[in-house]
Amino acid sequence: MTDNNGMAANPAFLSSGDQVDSLSETECRELLGTRTFGRVGVTSGGLPVILPVRYLYEADAITFRTGSGTKLRAAEQGDVLAFEVDAYDDETKRGWSVLVLGRASVLTTEHEHDGIPTLEPSDPDTRINHYVRLGCELITGRRLLPANGE
Amino acid sequence: MTDNNGMAANPAFLSSGDQVDSLSETECRELLGTRTFGRVGVTSGGLPVILPVRYLYEADAITFRTGSGTKLRAAEQGDVLAFEVDAYDDETKRGWSVLVLGRASVLTTEHEHDGIPTLEPSDPDTRINHYVRLGCELITGRRLLPANGE
Repeated sequence: MTDNNGMAANPAFLSSGDQVDSLSETECRELLGTRTFGRVGVTSGGLPVILPVRYLYEADAITFRTGSGTKLRAAEQGDVLAFEVDAYDDETKRGWSVLVLGRASVLTTEHEHDGIPTLEPSDPDTRINHYVRLGCELITGRRLLPANGE
Repeated sequence: MTDNNGMAANPAFLSSGDQVDSLSETECRELLGTRTFGRVGVTSGGLPVILPVRYLYEADAITFRTGSGTKLRAAEQGDVLAFEVDAYDDETKRGWSVLVLGRASVLTTEHEHDGIPTLEPSDPDTRINHYVRLGCELITGRRLLPANGE
């Protein structure tokens, strides 16, 4: 009955029913430190949004710079943000993804000596001159494995 | 006053105040077709969550397989989901990110002949045997560029 023209014609997609496997919090924290590019998830006007950021993971917090848009507004309101980092190898169909949930705050110079990353003086030539910090309150991760039988 | 011990000590992070530049919808659609691994953003219990998926972009829709968790529940309720795909080169500090918003639905065998991807028979050996489709109702994208002066 199935004519198999669609997904079956696309081997890459066929193998997407990957098995997942949880990572420990320790593994997640190690992986967070291995990358500098991730994504922030925020609910904006009731809708989910995913935005790319470069980040620093230090003192169990994610810090990133941002302009005066969705991410800054969320941080000013102290919203809970999601932050995700992953790696995936299309050939081996293996990878991992770490998800952090935490309340966001805008960093100011007051924070400079609290052991969290030092603020750079803001640069009038760039409009992306706010720093947002996200405490790693809830960390989960999954290992992505090929589907059975591959 | 700033002691520059934190962010200043991390050149990768210092350059994170990247300039962004919008992509056209046509560019976004082309880029969606170049990848098979992306991330779904969903609001679960009022909190944003980002989950990795392998996907197929066809007929201006994103299709992915999932188990019976957050993503399936969202699709059963017809929620609006976010979907993001990106690429980033840490050396050149260049990349792109495409964000799709659309209402999710669970694919069933009824959809087989509507010109959308054909359902594989569900595999009792894998627990990831549901197909979710996300129409690309709103597509935006940004080019990630190094900050000024780099």
